[in-house]
Amino acid sequence: MSEQPAPAPVPVLPAEVADALKRDAAGLVAAVVQQFDTNEVLMLGWMDDEALRRTMTSGRVTFYSRSRQEYWRKGDTSGHVQWVKSVALDCDGDALLVRVDQVGAACHTGTRTCFDGRGLPVVAGDAGAAGNAS
Amino acid sequence: MSEQPAPAPVPVLPAEVADALKRDAAGLVAAVVQQFDTNEVLMLGWMDDEALRRTMTSGRVTFYSRSRQEYWRKGDTSGHVQWVKSVALDCDGDALLVRVDQVGAACHTGTRTCFDGRGLPVVAGDAGAAGNAS
Repeated sequence: MSEQPAPAPVPVLPAEVADALKRDAAGLVAAVVQQFDTNEVLMLGWMDDEALRRTMTSGRVTFYSRSRQEYWRKGDTSGHVQWVKSVALDCDGDALLVRVDQVGAACHTGTRTCFDGRGLPVVAGDAGAAGNAS
Repeated sequence: MSEQPAPAPVPVLPAEVADALKRDAAGLVAAVVQQFDTNEVLMLGWMDDEALRRTMTSGRVTFYSRSRQEYWRKGDTSGHVQWVKSVALDCDGDALLVRVDQVGAACHTGTRTCFDGRGLPVVAGDAGAAGNAS
């Protein structure tokens, strides 16, 4: 038999990270994206294992689009790149906090964040008026 | 026939809010909870229409627990109440940003946020090293 080169290993998430993820029915976890220096919450996206692996290893944020069912690396079309500063997984494994340096607008509508100008009417809570919480 | 009192109307979300929600297969949207004055991201929870309605109208944050399949009003057990300051719905309707005044620890493990000390190893991105994004 002729010798064949060994197939290149398929890159995967570190086992301790993959084991800690609590994925939804679609295999995804929520990814909160925050500007690293101002702490603004810019947007929320979704990641499967491969999107998280790319985000952890490439310096750029990659999401998995639930509507288009494909990977998208933020900024490839718009130029509005997200440079990764840090990633943390929450206590129950279903949410990521991705701190980035956002180039330009995070939102495809052109606003800095996906929440700008989108407030809902609320009754604000007030610890003083309500007294001590039990 | 004897007269019966009219049944009390069941409170529901305003139609324009309900119509804007893009719920997942379980009927939920993600809710990012942020400390209003420091911009810390405290935690991520899940809300259905009723949890959002309670959050918008009561001054306190109510989530829907995916694991326990029940409503929980943050702080009722722990005392670590979240007083609502504002709520915004993102551009595509699948994420809420709930700004609060958090009493004590947001995380059930006792840390201030659910992400504290839970960083993953990453290769940080660097706009300077990478040159201009295309």
